[in-house]
Amino acid sequence: MAVMQKSVLALSGGVGGAKLALGLADSVAAGQLHVLANTGDDFKHLGLHISPDIDTLLYTLSGKSNESLGWGLADETWTVMAALEQLQGETWFRLGDNDLATHLWRTAQLADGVSLLDVTGKLAAQLGIVSHIHPMCEELVSTTVHSEGRDLAFQHYFVREQCKPAVTGFSFDGIDQASPNPEVMMLLASEALSAIVVCPSNPFVSIDPILQIPRMWTALRDCAAPLVLVSPIVSGMAIKGPAAKMMVELGMPVTALGVAQHYCDLYPDLLDYFVIDETDAKLVDEIAKLGVNVAIAPTVMTSRDDKKRLARFILDLVE
Amino acid sequence: MAVMQKSVLALSGGVGGAKLALGLADSVAAGQLHVLANTGDDFKHLGLHISPDIDTLLYTLSGKSNESLGWGLADETWTVMAALEQLQGETWFRLGDNDLATHLWRTAQLADGVSLLDVTGKLAAQLGIVSHIHPMCEELVSTTVHSEGRDLAFQHYFVREQCKPAVTGFSFDGIDQASPNPEVMMLLASEALSAIVVCPSNPFVSIDPILQIPRMWTALRDCAAPLVLVSPIVSGMAIKGPAAKMMVELGMPVTALGVAQHYCDLYPDLLDYFVIDETDAKLVDEIAKLGVNVAIAPTVMTSRDDKKRLARFILDLVE
Repeated sequence: MAVMQKSVLALSGGVGGAKLALGLADSVAAGQLHVLANTGDDFKHLGLHISPDIDTLLYTLSGKSNESLGWGLADETWTVMAALEQLQGETWFRLGDNDLATHLWRTAQLADGVSLLDVTGKLAAQLGIVSHIHPMCEELVSTTVHSEGRDLAFQHYFVREQCKPAVTGFSFDGIDQASPNPEVMMLLASEALSAIVVCPSNPFVSIDPILQIPRMWTALRDCAAPLVLVSPIVSGMAIKGPAAKMMVELGMPVTALGVAQHYCDLYPDLLDYFVIDETDAKLVDEIAKLGVNVAIAPTVMTSRDDKKRLARFILDLVE
Repeated sequence: MAVMQKSVLALSGGVGGAKLALGLADSVAAGQLHVLANTGDDFKHLGLHISPDIDTLLYTLSGKSNESLGWGLADETWTVMAALEQLQGETWFRLGDNDLATHLWRTAQLADGVSLLDVTGKLAAQLGIVSHIHPMCEELVSTTVHSEGRDLAFQHYFVREQCKPAVTGFSFDGIDQASPNPEVMMLLASEALSAIVVCPSNPFVSIDPILQIPRMWTALRDCAAPLVLVSPIVSGMAIKGPAAKMMVELGMPVTALGVAQHYCDLYPDLLDYFVIDETDAKLVDEIAKLGVNVAIAPTVMTSRDDKKRLARFILDLVE
């Protein structure tokens, strides 16, 4: 395969998105992948600034992620959490000893006035990552999950309550005051991109926060590079996380078509290509009626080769 | 020895003071020891609220202190610091994994609006401590060490630069706005105390911050209970820490007499008894000229029995 000369911009949340980001990083020339990361689930916890999706991207792209846990770092130890448990402190958000160093370092840097963008860049460099990870914005945007009769901070919903409450909607506090990442806006306005890839992340809590930053989705729409979205719903299930459960609770069809409708309704003319899994081939015609080019590929990424194969499929698609 | 019916209030900084506090805790009835702790070296570090002297008291009184290191917890591990070092983060202030749990817990509690007093009380209870540890105030008071041509935050001077810069003076930023611990003020106004003991802590950076909180030293002076100060300088040396070095740099005689003069100059009529080490017996007459009752005892505390012996000597002295 020819080395890509132009850059690729990937939009990603955590685990599911990071898998494809890794495949893309393996498939483009060194330094040509830019990842626009959701920070809508960033939060302050125990005094620390925690950026779960950025960290998942950092750990995944550096090959240091914990494959068996599905989050955090490999070869992790849990001494601090055990001591905190003895103090009857909050341990529902599991912070490994090595992972804690990331949060302490980030918190100290931010307190010194370093931008989240630069903090992320320095962490990436320390971890030997040549791809560029861009937080969607500098401002703290806080996802609230609306459930029947109560509102939950995202990590309370996601981790503490293990996604059990039925959702009725979401809001992103602070998003109206947020400014889109300026480097990414420059990239979108340039001729440097060959493709924009929306990774198979949760539409509601990973991709919507990115797209709903003022001026973000229209800049993505207006960029000359084609935008390819990979459905996070395969055979009526989410590969990872609560996307399918949320769709049921929101009264949406739990299919790739439901995903496509969500994006076409909220962001007209944003999608150029919509990639669905080969097991969902029967949905092609209905999705195509929304005015999107549908492509079919094996989208379930288990091995590193799976990730690379899907990445190459996407890159070939837009060539 | 008869069990003390009344309470004892001890003023303490970190390691040196905590030794005598432990001796006192062993020598009074359960719950009858109150320790008024210096928080002038509290600081924010890596997003965490760190209270070094309170922690030393907590760890010492619970029997969990690291005797070989002289600070921190016994059986400590250092995973987080090693990971932070890999990130080229700030590791000059060594935070053990178990110690970190204390800081994370305190920071979270303070962020929830719990007072430092209550946070400290909860930590003490968790550690099985029956004595009462009172922070000198709720407000953040920050000790600045003035050195030739530059000012240093206390922990930068003390830990990062290992007390190497020559000091010219000290200031306690925020102290004028601080309010003395109200429980201690009530205790001082009551008939409940049999003695006030100023532990052999650093006069300049451990005891002065406590005494210089508005209304504090006069309340201590006006309390009916006798006040006994134990000299931190023995045979011209400090048992622990930079007190002797500071006295040289400040042009003071590095003796128990120098210590006594410091207190008598700044806080007239505060001291009732001044305890010096038996090796300094020759200084009795000169110190007595300052208008203080001088008592002589073995003041170097190595074993737990040494600590108890000195505590009992003091309690017998005031009986």
